Amino acid sequence: MLPKTQLNPPFNITRASHVSLTVTDLGASRDFYRDVIGLVVTEETADTVYFRGLEESVHHSLTLYKTDGAPLADQVGFRVQTDDDIDRAAAYFASIGIEHRRVDKPYQGPTLQFVDPVGTHIELTSSMDVVERKMQNYNEFKAGAPQRIDHFQIVTHDVQKATDFYHTLGYRLSEYTAKDNTDELWGTWMEVKGNTHDLVFTNGRGPRLHHFAYTVPDASALIHAADVAGAYGLGHEIDRGPGRHGISNALFLYVRDPDQHRIELFNTHYQFIDLETPPIRWDVSNPKRAQLWGMPASARWFFEASEFADQPVEEPLLAATPDTLEQYLQLH
Amino acid sequence: MLPKTQLNPPFNITRASHVSLTVTDLGASRDFYRDVIGLVVTEETADTVYFRGLEESVHHSLTLYKTDGAPLADQVGFRVQTDDDIDRAAAYFASIGIEHRRVDKPYQGPTLQFVDPVGTHIELTSSMDVVERKMQNYNEFKAGAPQRIDHFQIVTHDVQKATDFYHTLGYRLSEYTAKDNTDELWGTWMEVKGNTHDLVFTNGRGPRLHHFAYTVPDASALIHAADVAGAYGLGHEIDRGPGRHGISNALFLYVRDPDQHRIELFNTHYQFIDLETPPIRWDVSNPKRAQLWGMPASARWFFEASEFADQPVEEPLLAATPDTLEQYLQLH
Amino acid sequence: MLPKTQLNPPFNITRASHVSLTVTDLGASRDFYRDVIGLVVTEETADTVYFRGLEESVHHSLTLYKTDGAPLADQVGFRVQTDDDIDRAAAYFASIGIEHRRVDKPYQGPTLQFVDPVGTHIELTSSMDVVERKMQNYNEFKAGAPQRIDHFQIVTHDVQKATDFYHTLGYRLSEYTAKDNTDELWGTWMEVKGNTHDLVFTNGRGPRLHHFAYTVPDASALIHAADVAGAYGLGHEIDRGPGRHGISNALFLYVRDPDQHRIELFNTHYQFIDLETPPIRWDVSNPKRAQLWGMPASARWFFEASEFADQPVEEPLLAATPDTLEQYLQLH
Amino acid sequence: MLPKTQLNPPFNITRASHVSLTVTDLGASRDFYRDVIGLVVTEETADTVYFRGLEESVHHSLTLYKTDGAPLADQVGFRVQTDDDIDRAAAYFASIGIEHRRVDKPYQGPTLQFVDPVGTHIELTSSMDVVERKMQNYNEFKAGAPQRIDHFQIVTHDVQKATDFYHTLGYRLSEYTAKDNTDELWGTWMEVKGNTHDLVFTNGRGPRLHHFAYTVPDASALIHAADVAGAYGLGHEIDRGPGRHGISNALFLYVRDPDQHRIELFNTHYQFIDLETPPIRWDVSNPKRAQLWGMPASARWFFEASEFADQPVEEPLLAATPDTLEQYLQLH
Repeated sequence: MLPKTQLNPPFNITRASHVSLTVTDLGASRDFYRDVIGLVVTEETADTVYFRGLEESVHHSLTLYKTDGAPLADQVGFRVQTDDDIDRAAAYFASIGIEHRRVDKPYQGPTLQFVDPVGTHIELTSSMDVVERKMQNYNEFKAGAPQRIDHFQIVTHDVQKATDFYHTLGYRLSEYTAKDNTDELWGTWMEVKGNTHDLVFTNGRGPRLHHFAYTVPDASALIHAADVAGAYGLGHEIDRGPGRHGISNALFLYVRDPDQHRIELFNTHYQFIDLETPPIRWDVSNPKRAQLWGMPASARWFFEASEFADQPVEEPLLAATPDTLEQYLQLH
Repeated sequence: MLPKTQLNPPFNITRASHVSLTVTDLGASRDFYRDVIGLVVTEETADTVYFRGLEESVHHSLTLYKTDGAPLADQVGFRVQTDDDIDRAAAYFASIGIEHRRVDKPYQGPTLQFVDPVGTHIELTSSMDVVERKMQNYNEFKAGAPQRIDHFQIVTHDVQKATDFYHTLGYRLSEYTAKDNTDELWGTWMEVKGNTHDLVFTNGRGPRLHHFAYTVPDASALIHAADVAGAYGLGHEIDRGPGRHGISNALFLYVRDPDQHRIELFNTHYQFIDLETPPIRWDVSNPKRAQLWGMPASARWFFEASEFADQPVEEPLLAATPDTLEQYLQLH
Repeated sequence: MLPKTQLNPPFNITRASHVSLTVTDLGASRDFYRDVIGLVVTEETADTVYFRGLEESVHHSLTLYKTDGAPLADQVGFRVQTDDDIDRAAAYFASIGIEHRRVDKPYQGPTLQFVDPVGTHIELTSSMDVVERKMQNYNEFKAGAPQRIDHFQIVTHDVQKATDFYHTLGYRLSEYTAKDNTDELWGTWMEVKGNTHDLVFTNGRGPRLHHFAYTVPDASALIHAADVAGAYGLGHEIDRGPGRHGISNALFLYVRDPDQHRIELFNTHYQFIDLETPPIRWDVSNPKRAQLWGMPASARWFFEASEFADQPVEEPLLAATPDTLEQYLQLH
Repeated sequence: MLPKTQLNPPFNITRASHVSLTVTDLGASRDFYRDVIGLVVTEETADTVYFRGLEESVHHSLTLYKTDGAPLADQVGFRVQTDDDIDRAAAYFASIGIEHRRVDKPYQGPTLQFVDPVGTHIELTSSMDVVERKMQNYNEFKAGAPQRIDHFQIVTHDVQKATDFYHTLGYRLSEYTAKDNTDELWGTWMEVKGNTHDLVFTNGRGPRLHHFAYTVPDASALIHAADVAGAYGLGHEIDRGPGRHGISNALFLYVRDPDQHRIELFNTHYQFIDLETPPIRWDVSNPKRAQLWGMPASARWFFEASEFADQPVEEPLLAATPDTLEQYLQLH
């Protein structure tokens, strides 16, 4: 069932902004995100590396923490507009019984973490230390020249519940997949910043972080990213793409990091601001929603994703998605 | 002097959205915007042509009206979020003595026109008829493949006054030029939609519409637009570019239409959402603000712009800008 | 075993130049090559369509003939330098017992057809009618904007025999695959025009035309070609790519036409003129030779190709290539 | 008057291959060509730096020598096919009274220098030391990612004499400019390697090396080169472009090095092999020959070029070219 857009949410979320992961070999992961992806290292300590995109003026949009255990997704981060929004968020979560806590995070303003109704670990903050935008340091551009973090995709056992929750927070549906002839939601693309997506939920075993995405300038940068991965002998770590999603119209490339966390580099999403514009519906049976063209995604792309710490993974409420590798192979 | 960002404006403007011009030969202008620029013709009547960008789902972002007089800028348009915002705008303008009127415009929801304190003719509307996004009709792409309207640049005799007014409406300064060692504003780049600019004012004889701008996908599309202009024998109608602005980081190409209205095709502006990010200041004496590279702009680019109907043009309060052709030539 | 480069061949072949195919639905195939690929239609009759690339000044580089039978590869064409070279070729073939005949072909100068030692049907001509280069008609560019024909790839049962024959004609080896630790040739890339390839032979059931290839300007054009195919609902007719071959360094996209003939659009091959430069060797066991990155090729790409009329297909002398779909899937 | 193409020249020249320059600050020039242009440093000594393009397997295509005097063009280099061609060249020059001498050059095979009839200093060699092609080291690509040297442009006082001479050596005219309604040659584009140009002569004070040119992969690389120049504060050293030449169809960017030698980065020239294709004629009065689009070239581009050591510069036999800055400015 389609949720209604909430124009006066309890607090003001402005954009997808940062993500943190745990990794087993900090040096290897730093090299990967810096040299193969092209992110800027803002700061590096013995157990943490902070990255940002080339045009970002915030201290970090990706944080890696060294772990001695299994590599996991840590927090998926969004920005709120002001410090007051953090207070309002805390009050709102208290009022509806959402688990949350204030935390101190270096280089961040007031920060609040919560676990959403489908188990995703989310962190809100209202500001970050301001650093130099590198967008005109063209001589330092590498690989895909990623500009900024854009969105997150979460695999969840209950797309409807997740979608309803984020709509009460002001997220708005831009596109969605539903079982043919029904409103049974299989995937929802939701936004707060005025383009296609800040947060995506798709049906499956969850909660798991399927990927986080950075924009790249154009198709040339995307192909150069693939070429650089190839030059480092990492061509096999591209587990989908290049191809063109029907949903969101993104030209995409998905790459796995040394711990198999997945980053998407993409381009060409569109503006989505005007309220009269309805979300775009795609039937689950329509293969164009997945891609207008592109070789089949790997099985890894369909079945692997990053779990959150101490968060049990639940089986999806809906039957297995038809997006199996086998189905794809039939198409080609 | 830098204005303060207003977080709770009297009504909610969401984005630069549409522009209308008068033209002397409707067929010639239609051909130009459709074939040389690549816009989509949504509808055409005996005296009007409506265009939109390839990803736009609104009925029009550019409207051309046939005139028997001199070609002029008609209205510069912005979207407000809801119909209520139109009412709030009318009430606000009445309260501060701004000339305004409600008008009926085909394919638009409630619409309000006003004349801003520096004489610019502005039109607000809260909705438009929804039409098909052409963004996946790649087989219909032409020339620069313009995606959507993005911003307007107005030449004004009083940049400070214009800037102050739009800040009370919630516009926020992303970049500006100021006389060295002072806060005397020479140019202001202001936004409402979360990236570099929706509305720009620069110092000079005004009010005049210097240009309206559409985004193109990438450098390849921008070069292809220039090549298509060349193929039509219109290479000389490019009056600036390709080049890279320091301000806004845009890769730009400026083209004159058959009546010498100016359209900018550009790429690569950046996200500007977080409140802690200060605007970028550029001293008027710094040539990099104008361009990091690029051959000198033509004299036409500096001195020609489209006037508004029945709106007297005033001499600038500040002394002549150093951006003269002569100054540029000295640099090359 | 590597053949020796022949600097004084019996006649002078200058480049891969044209190919002819039979097709079952001439209109459908014309639309495909014109609209989905972007070739220029030079001329069209009731049973024939002639195409050329955007920069070509020759009458045709691709000819389609209507057939009521099965669609087949007709002739693979090369240019010789002068009319005398046609005479010299005829004399040479007579001297070594190669089946050949002079034919009259519209829009072509003196033309000689022969069947090479592995059964490939080859046509030589010394000139063609000169037509307008469309390379500056940027307003007419479509899809991949293919510039010119570049090379052919033939599947053969005997790579060594084919390679030896063409070396006596002056072709030169730029790259090759060989069984590890041996000189057993599995694939040979040979050129006459000073870059990577005019003619490629790979091991398998042959003779069959695996593909003919046109260059496109850049990665953006290649992606646009894929997008246009997708827009026409033909995304599934891409049976490999985009990806980057190790061999030849080509960025590639393979598309099947309505009769399942295969065209490659590609970019980025390199100059190969100086005699001191040795060919590049790739072990068959090295997966990078096939691609530095890219999702696995489809089974169709590996096993399907166009047969020649009345030409029996022979089983390869060498054991089945490890380039099976299964092997690729293991890598991803 | 148009020269006749010579199919059996006295020796076999295969391509434009290398250039040497003297520079006043070797470190500054090395940094420029490596970081701003993106060439690969093959080797560096106390007084010499050798560079090559990313796809070149030869030891050097650009050599810089430290000078304590004025910076000059040293030698413009071409490759011949075999060592025997060097002997044949020496014999031929002796027979027609051309000044020439054999020299030993490190990393080069047999090498012969001569002064052509209009005073250009030319060097021929038959081989070079083979080094690694860097074309798949995408992680090392910088700036314009120049692939290979392509051609030279020489300003000469006598275009006709220069053109006639090189035609006897087998060069072939692909395009030319001539005074309207005459065959008075003002500029000639000549090739040996099968595309638009290896050697260009234009009318003016000469002999002077106007520029040497490297190909770049595409428009994106060309724009990135300009952006990198801008990032290094060298935007003003672009003295022409980006723009599109009518002649040769090149997308071009001209950059001055620290000693004001000029390098062109360009893209999109076309294949020119078939003998039936006539050269393209451009009237001197046709501004499209110079550019289909692009802002006016600077005065520096028109009037400055690198002289050769001890070689007097002569005034042009033809009246001053109409390509003056003033003429261009009138067009814009």
